Amino acid sequence: MDRGTLGSESSKHYDAVVIGAGIIGLATAYHLKQSNPNLSVLVIDRMHAAAQGDTAKSAGGCRDMFTSEVSLLLAKSSVDFYRYVQDEMGFNLNLEMLGYLFLLTHRKFSEFERVENRIRKEGIRVRIFERDELAELIPDLVPDPSSEQSKIIGLEQIYKGVFGQDCGIVAPELVAKFYEEQFKKLNGEFLFGIEVKTLRIEAKPTLGLPNEPYAWQEKAFSGVETNRGFIRADSIFVASGSRTSILLDPLGVDCLTKPKKRMIFRVRGEPLNRLLQTKGFSDFNVLPFTFLPKVRGFEVWIRPTRGEKSFWIGASDDIGRRYLFEDEPTAEENYYTYNISPILSEFFPCFANLRPVNSWAGLYDINALDGTPIVDQVSNCIFAIGTSGSGISKADALGRIATALFQGKTETRLFGNKRITASRIGLTNRAVDKEEFVI
Amino acid sequence: MDRGTLGSESSKHYDAVVIGAGIIGLATAYHLKQSNPNLSVLVIDRMHAAAQGDTAKSAGGCRDMFTSEVSLLLAKSSVDFYRYVQDEMGFNLNLEMLGYLFLLTHRKFSEFERVENRIRKEGIRVRIFERDELAELIPDLVPDPSSEQSKIIGLEQIYKGVFGQDCGIVAPELVAKFYEEQFKKLNGEFLFGIEVKTLRIEAKPTLGLPNEPYAWQEKAFSGVETNRGFIRADSIFVASGSRTSILLDPLGVDCLTKPKKRMIFRVRGEPLNRLLQTKGFSDFNVLPFTFLPKVRGFEVWIRPTRGEKSFWIGASDDIGRRYLFEDEPTAEENYYTYNISPILSEFFPCFANLRPVNSWAGLYDINALDGTPIVDQVSNCIFAIGTSGSGISKADALGRIATALFQGKTETRLFGNKRITASRIGLTNRAVDKEEFVI
Repeated sequence: MDRGTLGSESSKHYDAVVIGAGIIGLATAYHLKQSNPNLSVLVIDRMHAAAQGDTAKSAGGCRDMFTSEVSLLLAKSSVDFYRYVQDEMGFNLNLEMLGYLFLLTHRKFSEFERVENRIRKEGIRVRIFERDELAELIPDLVPDPSSEQSKIIGLEQIYKGVFGQDCGIVAPELVAKFYEEQFKKLNGEFLFGIEVKTLRIEAKPTLGLPNEPYAWQEKAFSGVETNRGFIRADSIFVASGSRTSILLDPLGVDCLTKPKKRMIFRVRGEPLNRLLQTKGFSDFNVLPFTFLPKVRGFEVWIRPTRGEKSFWIGASDDIGRRYLFEDEPTAEENYYTYNISPILSEFFPCFANLRPVNSWAGLYDINALDGTPIVDQVSNCIFAIGTSGSGISKADALGRIATALFQGKTETRLFGNKRITASRIGLTNRAVDKEEFVI
Repeated sequence: MDRGTLGSESSKHYDAVVIGAGIIGLATAYHLKQSNPNLSVLVIDRMHAAAQGDTAKSAGGCRDMFTSEVSLLLAKSSVDFYRYVQDEMGFNLNLEMLGYLFLLTHRKFSEFERVENRIRKEGIRVRIFERDELAELIPDLVPDPSSEQSKIIGLEQIYKGVFGQDCGIVAPELVAKFYEEQFKKLNGEFLFGIEVKTLRIEAKPTLGLPNEPYAWQEKAFSGVETNRGFIRADSIFVASGSRTSILLDPLGVDCLTKPKKRMIFRVRGEPLNRLLQTKGFSDFNVLPFTFLPKVRGFEVWIRPTRGEKSFWIGASDDIGRRYLFEDEPTAEENYYTYNISPILSEFFPCFANLRPVNSWAGLYDINALDGTPIVDQVSNCIFAIGTSGSGISKADALGRIATALFQGKTETRLFGNKRITASRIGLTNRAVDKEEFVI
């Protein structure tokens, strides 16, 4: 059912309702149901199918390379799980380990060297490319731009490349589909096209008096008020990405994240053909997911999309890019023209005469404190947010941690037998070192 | 000047503009000017005089009793400074050290015992009152309510009282007046009745091209766009309390605080006369600023106001009290009737038949992460926020830290020769233990 008010559903009482059928909500729903097969679990979403929100806008980057111990643990176990799903379970995710290539200036490489040992010790496979090697493998790359424009911009030359071997790209919609199908096989339920108005808090026990709940009463979340009626639930999982604070603020719960727009521009054309056939990095013989040197916090990236013979281009900025929730964020052509293109064309002149053939935008939900996701619990409401752009890379771990919180477990077993204390990524006893590789 | 567009002011270029003439803005402006007498400093505010916003709504609590090391340092040095201002400089602040009395259940007292030594070691003077002593000193107190209502609410009996000797009340408007006058003596300037629309970011240097600033340009704040024109400034200080995120979000700066309404109800009447003459706690022979036992996170407090022979009653709640910015927050009579009164009347039956004679409401700017203020810098913009209800108690220290950041000093000398590393209360390298005594 997809329209009108809720019929039998509205009178139904679920053990758990998951708000949001994006990648985090789906991973949560799957692990919840898998660990507790008898639980009645309903996933609801305002869109008319799964993974139609910011998950669909994602660049689908998939990496195990993070500097913070916690991020690394979340990402490595998640990426390893996706590999297992594709290689062992035979479920195609379009997971291509074509690598992440960070092109670094001298100064940035020195910063990397300070964390290099720690990263390697965690089992992250990293390879360093000298500038000469880069120039040889990628003839289209100009490692030391020297034009007038590059001087005005203040570009520094590339010193070395840091290559993450076990990174790559994945199709977010296929990862979503995997979780969705598994969840359905376990008799998990979906309800689409339904908008949550608010989460209802009730006194527990209720006294049957006016104006309850009182401030001094024990309170719990009793369900979800929607545009199609009330859905009662014993537990609520909020996995609504950039909408999370819209749901939690009215309840007095601060999720400490804010939405920020990120845009992707698709570029294709004959001048890019050689770049699409770059050898020496991976068996895919394609340019890795490549990050140009940051210029005052502004970082341009290039993501190959072999199937459509194109590159997706994006960038991250910080100061000056507003925090704002938007229902329909759009990509700004000027952003490509004035911000991305001047830098991209200097390091990769083959892009100089091409214009994006299309573009789209989504919202990051940014945790400005440490750039690492938050999974926390307030009463019987569990929320998983703040992925700060690496939701795909960490979704599986977040789903497992949300499930562990539900089960009252202090420790979560992630894929590959790695363990994490759930409270580390909660807000009350947060123990996260700040992530440096936020892209 | 108070109306119309800016005349000569708009063409004037200030070394520093402080947004917000509340207690934090004023303390900042004063210390800034005092440390840098040649600086041209302008304080602007949307109200028509200083300290008319949330500073005016404050309960004026003034305490050195905090559990976190950082909060304690900020508060002790600030309260000591106010004492110095009143006792040594002869500037009346209506500072009355009538003490803070926390009425604790057995469980809460055990929690207090875990931090007691640490607090005492910091020089905080604390006295423990046994239940019998409390009952004798405060005949109006019922330490072990046993009515039907108290059972329904789930009140636990008071086990002991923890009394902070060097705590009390102060008139926020007089502290504000002190800073205002000192700042004026140093030739600091004010502009009232002016609303900030946005902070302007400019490329530095500018290229004179369209659509600047570009994401890759060096950027700095160049001034403040107001309803009365542009004010240019080399540095901007944001001390706008609950409005801070409204100013900083559009610039992509997350101040990690959210506003939450707090209400105060003034109650007076003959049944309270004995309470107003409570002996044995301070030379003021009045009930201390008293905190009733928390009931599921809900804490009612009583603040004596001798001059008007009344008590101010307030409470703090958490879950269920929404985060919301409101231009004109108002007190809800139902909140007193259904939430505060049932608890207040059980422990202090003398309040049972009285109704508030008036009430008001303001906004806390809450840092949900650790309940401790944030002073941080982004480019040439410094913001001081997140006082979480203890702005008066910490304002002086925050003003000094903001000034130290401006001066590029890593260490701040607080009043009484205490020192703090400014970055500890910034966001990037935050090193704050969570405050337990948020009221």
